[in-house]
Amino acid sequence: MLQQLLEQGYEEMVAIRRHLHMYPELSFHEVHTPAYIANYHRELGLEVREGVGGRGVVATLRGAKPGKTVAIRADFDALPIQELNDVPYKSKNDGVMHACGHDGHTAIALGLAKALVKMQDELTGNVVFIHQFAEEITPGGAIAMIEDGCLEGVDVIFGTHLWAPMPLGEIQVREGAIMAAADAVNIHIQGRGGHGAEPHQAVDAVLVGAQFVTNTQAVVARKVDPLKPAVFSVGHFEAINSFNVIADTVQLKGTVRTFDADVRDVMEREIEAVLKSVCDANGATYTYDYVRGYPPVVNHAAETAFVANIAQQYATVSTTPPMMIGEDFGYYMEHVPGTFFFTGAKNPAWEAVYPHHHARFEFDERAMLIAAKTLGDATLQYLAQ
Amino acid sequence: MLQQLLEQGYEEMVAIRRHLHMYPELSFHEVHTPAYIANYHRELGLEVREGVGGRGVVATLRGAKPGKTVAIRADFDALPIQELNDVPYKSKNDGVMHACGHDGHTAIALGLAKALVKMQDELTGNVVFIHQFAEEITPGGAIAMIEDGCLEGVDVIFGTHLWAPMPLGEIQVREGAIMAAADAVNIHIQGRGGHGAEPHQAVDAVLVGAQFVTNTQAVVARKVDPLKPAVFSVGHFEAINSFNVIADTVQLKGTVRTFDADVRDVMEREIEAVLKSVCDANGATYTYDYVRGYPPVVNHAAETAFVANIAQQYATVSTTPPMMIGEDFGYYMEHVPGTFFFTGAKNPAWEAVYPHHHARFEFDERAMLIAAKTLGDATLQYLAQ
Amino acid sequence: MLQQLLEQGYEEMVAIRRHLHMYPELSFHEVHTPAYIANYHRELGLEVREGVGGRGVVATLRGAKPGKTVAIRADFDALPIQELNDVPYKSKNDGVMHACGHDGHTAIALGLAKALVKMQDELTGNVVFIHQFAEEITPGGAIAMIEDGCLEGVDVIFGTHLWAPMPLGEIQVREGAIMAAADAVNIHIQGRGGHGAEPHQAVDAVLVGAQFVTNTQAVVARKVDPLKPAVFSVGHFEAINSFNVIADTVQLKGTVRTFDADVRDVMEREIEAVLKSVCDANGATYTYDYVRGYPPVVNHAAETAFVANIAQQYATVSTTPPMMIGEDFGYYMEHVPGTFFFTGAKNPAWEAVYPHHHARFEFDERAMLIAAKTLGDATLQYLAQ
Amino acid sequence: MLQQLLEQGYEEMVAIRRHLHMYPELSFHEVHTPAYIANYHRELGLEVREGVGGRGVVATLRGAKPGKTVAIRADFDALPIQELNDVPYKSKNDGVMHACGHDGHTAIALGLAKALVKMQDELTGNVVFIHQFAEEITPGGAIAMIEDGCLEGVDVIFGTHLWAPMPLGEIQVREGAIMAAADAVNIHIQGRGGHGAEPHQAVDAVLVGAQFVTNTQAVVARKVDPLKPAVFSVGHFEAINSFNVIADTVQLKGTVRTFDADVRDVMEREIEAVLKSVCDANGATYTYDYVRGYPPVVNHAAETAFVANIAQQYATVSTTPPMMIGEDFGYYMEHVPGTFFFTGAKNPAWEAVYPHHHARFEFDERAMLIAAKTLGDATLQYLAQ
Repeated sequence: MLQQLLEQGYEEMVAIRRHLHMYPELSFHEVHTPAYIANYHRELGLEVREGVGGRGVVATLRGAKPGKTVAIRADFDALPIQELNDVPYKSKNDGVMHACGHDGHTAIALGLAKALVKMQDELTGNVVFIHQFAEEITPGGAIAMIEDGCLEGVDVIFGTHLWAPMPLGEIQVREGAIMAAADAVNIHIQGRGGHGAEPHQAVDAVLVGAQFVTNTQAVVARKVDPLKPAVFSVGHFEAINSFNVIADTVQLKGTVRTFDADVRDVMEREIEAVLKSVCDANGATYTYDYVRGYPPVVNHAAETAFVANIAQQYATVSTTPPMMIGEDFGYYMEHVPGTFFFTGAKNPAWEAVYPHHHARFEFDERAMLIAAKTLGDATLQYLAQ
Repeated sequence: MLQQLLEQGYEEMVAIRRHLHMYPELSFHEVHTPAYIANYHRELGLEVREGVGGRGVVATLRGAKPGKTVAIRADFDALPIQELNDVPYKSKNDGVMHACGHDGHTAIALGLAKALVKMQDELTGNVVFIHQFAEEITPGGAIAMIEDGCLEGVDVIFGTHLWAPMPLGEIQVREGAIMAAADAVNIHIQGRGGHGAEPHQAVDAVLVGAQFVTNTQAVVARKVDPLKPAVFSVGHFEAINSFNVIADTVQLKGTVRTFDADVRDVMEREIEAVLKSVCDANGATYTYDYVRGYPPVVNHAAETAFVANIAQQYATVSTTPPMMIGEDFGYYMEHVPGTFFFTGAKNPAWEAVYPHHHARFEFDERAMLIAAKTLGDATLQYLAQ
Repeated sequence: MLQQLLEQGYEEMVAIRRHLHMYPELSFHEVHTPAYIANYHRELGLEVREGVGGRGVVATLRGAKPGKTVAIRADFDALPIQELNDVPYKSKNDGVMHACGHDGHTAIALGLAKALVKMQDELTGNVVFIHQFAEEITPGGAIAMIEDGCLEGVDVIFGTHLWAPMPLGEIQVREGAIMAAADAVNIHIQGRGGHGAEPHQAVDAVLVGAQFVTNTQAVVARKVDPLKPAVFSVGHFEAINSFNVIADTVQLKGTVRTFDADVRDVMEREIEAVLKSVCDANGATYTYDYVRGYPPVVNHAAETAFVANIAQQYATVSTTPPMMIGEDFGYYMEHVPGTFFFTGAKNPAWEAVYPHHHARFEFDERAMLIAAKTLGDATLQYLAQ
Repeated sequence: MLQQLLEQGYEEMVAIRRHLHMYPELSFHEVHTPAYIANYHRELGLEVREGVGGRGVVATLRGAKPGKTVAIRADFDALPIQELNDVPYKSKNDGVMHACGHDGHTAIALGLAKALVKMQDELTGNVVFIHQFAEEITPGGAIAMIEDGCLEGVDVIFGTHLWAPMPLGEIQVREGAIMAAADAVNIHIQGRGGHGAEPHQAVDAVLVGAQFVTNTQAVVARKVDPLKPAVFSVGHFEAINSFNVIADTVQLKGTVRTFDADVRDVMEREIEAVLKSVCDANGATYTYDYVRGYPPVVNHAAETAFVANIAQQYATVSTTPPMMIGEDFGYYMEHVPGTFFFTGAKNPAWEAVYPHHHARFEFDERAMLIAAKTLGDATLQYLAQ
């Protein structure tokens, strides 16, 4: 019955998605989008709480009979990108675009709510729709919404990400760490500038920075358990000077990716140890700013197997290797069990696929239906247990 | 008699210097200065050739009797600096300043010409005043003036630099290399950009650049004869990117200083060898642009001893260690023997001394008289040999 | 029934193990052990082939009815270690010891053969006991035994390793790579010796070696997919000279561990790329000898799930992370499907556990029974399919 | 007259040298040589003191008239080398050889003493012959002989080294630093050994050592005034292990060469700074033993010019660049003015020249006469001032 209801609602789901796509809003600046969502749920008759953790919306559907509570999370913020697609529903907000599929995530949740409302009498337990703001920018909206009670009474949480590089009709799951912790490292090395001809009178910040980059290779190679992934990339190395001086300072910016809390600690500590050592050896000083981004998304084993099993009805299911990108869904699963999976959204006819965060990003809207069916069926079966 | 003539002319020498100081002109843009110099010499009755090598002036004083020819070189360009001194003769040209003493060098030569004109009847041989444009910027004016014949018939060349960090009353000489070859190195490293989380899909240009800087330390330390000075400083390291990418390219700029032709070749060759090696190891490519600046200033032994001996009458003479800065006087001495020395110009009463090229640079004008006496006496004694 | 038979045979299994423990033989020097094994099987009535691939023994038990063929592999070589345990069955061969549990592996296989012989009438298909020599030293005995036909007609292969660090009563399995490829790297760097005071006349092999070790850190850190484990350790760095010379040569020895064929290729190629680059940059030459050891042990998915399921009757089953050590069981699974698992063998009462290859290594013999039951039950169920 | 006397004594000088050559004695083990020297001087009638500072001999020749005192230093120890020359006066002491010319130095001094004794009546002042033991091995004999009073009353000291690579008939002098300070560095790096497959459980001493060697290149390249020579060579890098372990410790031995006290301090301090930094970064510890060898030999300006001027009568005189090797003559010149020079001793007919410390080392004995004349004339002229 759920399947039929969702299929009947597919056209509206598309309409919702396209509406949202035309009016994207930046992270932490969402106004119309949460109002639109709240209004939709209210009209369906759900209990709605707005401003959760700031700009989030939580809508609760109470089943006829008491039981467990399943949360479905959908994020709704957009990106600072000028859309280059030429579609009827092209973004009307200059320089802002739903280029990651959050418009689709929201439409899935609203479509699912509309279908489940019609099954309310049969429901044993409740469904909570967590509409999250600000997924794209740390610290993200999840922490604040959790602190504001969005997980109260929740027994399990499910979420998905529409995934444009993966063909429509596929779903990828993974037990354990599925997405990385993505941290930022900002470093300032303070040497002592001088004339290029007189190195002994100066402290060469470029040399210190170079030794830092060279020597930190050993952190990943030697300090981390080889079985546990870790990356440290320095993308930014800035010493803009005349050719004949010795650099006074260097600015470095990089990123650390890990899947394991211990490894994350090792990376933070050992990168600084190398930094300190090369500064000590050269008479330089430094500031070290290690900014923790989202934690890894670590799927729970039982819930992942549960959803994977259900998904096989609606898609070809396989296991994804861990992905080095980040997501704040992990915060929820630090409090309640759950799982997060990828729903393939590449139209088989498309030749080129523009990656997420690209000005020509697009996804096959039929993926929304597959996702909604999987999430909805998982919800029903979970409550029926 | 020369001494007396120079002392009588000192007041005018100061006036000339201050006039030039008020109207400084940038290298390769000198117009009024060479015209002023040419006019002065012409009024003294010297043979004057203008536009030598572009903007240089060559004035020849022919003695009553035939003999050898001594050249005195004085440079006359100024720097792109906004003067901060509050003196009556402050620069009237915005953003341009005689902050290196070339105004003084010119005044010395003109004052010396005026004195020697009065001794013309006694002169056996000739004196050529080489007023050089564009000493501050490579390729400098010397090459062009030499190609345009400024050294024709010249047997020996003398030159001096007023030196503000050294006390008035001192002169420093050195046989052999007294000033360094100052070269520039421009490097472009082409890696392959990518996402910071996926190093194996990219070629990290920052890492290649860092390994280059780290490994080139061994060029100076191991590839160069330890008895021969060499410096390689990378002042500029540019990879301006977001923290979470892998740099596609890096730009490096540096300087090499040497005193020995072989060492210069070693440095040019071995720095590239390291660059090639780190690119090869990482799958990157590069461009390597080694720009030779002025050659070292290498004083001839006999001429240096000759001038040092004479200078003892007018100053305390000592030997300077080689200086790591550059000067294009060396080009002249690749063609004729000669010597270049430093004339102390620090007023003993001054507490602070601003270095050459500083917006508050100043020198004690009495140093001009000491320099003129030394150069003039050397000229007379050389011709009298 | 199998369980009962094995329990009845446990005492003999212990006796066999202790006998073998007293008479250990080194890899590629096994004489009495294979003769003992062959004799035992022959007395049970199995078809026995000796000298398989050199020193291996293959014994085949043919069931009453035709069917599939299951192979059970047990290795039987010992290590060049002087036993320090004070037990009645202490090694009687000086400097040789069963310090890795292969005595136990053999006893498991012989005990299992004795039990299955009694069930021969019910057997649909065959069981092949592959007793392998020389597991401890590359190239190992597996390749030669395979080439000599030990897998002919075999449909599936099972094997286990008694594991002293893991408590008795546990079994660890893993789908995919469970044990690493363990390769050796031998490097000779040829510089040009000289006097320590004259680096520019020499090529400093120590510096080249040091740059090699420093720069290869980036191979693991940047050239390998962060999700795929890889290790490169240089354990041996030899430049034995007087303090005041420059080293003519350096010898390096190291090991590479990987789980993935592509990563293995990347490591072999990129380590040499770094070696070549540091030699090129310094004017040194090198020889590079990359010796591939055992391939990774890669368990097949279906067979692993099959055995894991059966093992739950006899032990607590969990998933092990991949192990960085090597084993030549992987060769068999390049030809037939199969799985290799670890059987916990730590007596819960022991305070200290001596690691495998330690002179005080010991395991709880009851683990043999658990392993035999698991292997035997898997064999029966597989044949019954 | 001195010249004639020396020429008359040349044959005996050669005989003395050959006698000494046949009976060489190792540093700090000289017995017969000092006895021979003392006896010779005593027979000439000089005041002789034996056992000076241990094994040194000081012989004083007092002139008829009081005046200044000139010291002539000659060293007399040999080397642990098995002579390969096939000459009548080949070393009779197995494994010991005068392969550095100290036999010649001693013969020069004895020959000069014999000549000067004959001029005693004309001498105004005294001549002290300092026969030094143990020049080849630190701490050398000079310190002990000075402490034991060998320089008491001495006004100036002269010394020479016969120099086989330089043609007979040449003498090389140098004002200031002529020979380097030669120091030794012994380093022990303590990591934490482990299995090659588990770097994160260990502290890799080989990596620490490699980073040390790599990063210390920057000490010479960046921490030392480029105009002042400095060398650091690590000749010994010892980590002898199996290929598949992680090294627990590394032993390094190297040498530092400098000519300037400040640079020497910089080297000692900055090498340790790098060592500390790489140990800190990796969790290793170290011991650092910086053993100061001989100080630089720094010739005094006036005395060098004085001797150079005199030497022109007997040889072609030129200026040598500083030499990176060491000598303990510098200790004497820390107390009294003096100069040390090189006397060319290569027979022009020889094709190959074996370097000092070679088993086939030889020098042209006629160089002894040139050296004796120069030293003797300098002595006479100094006393005559």
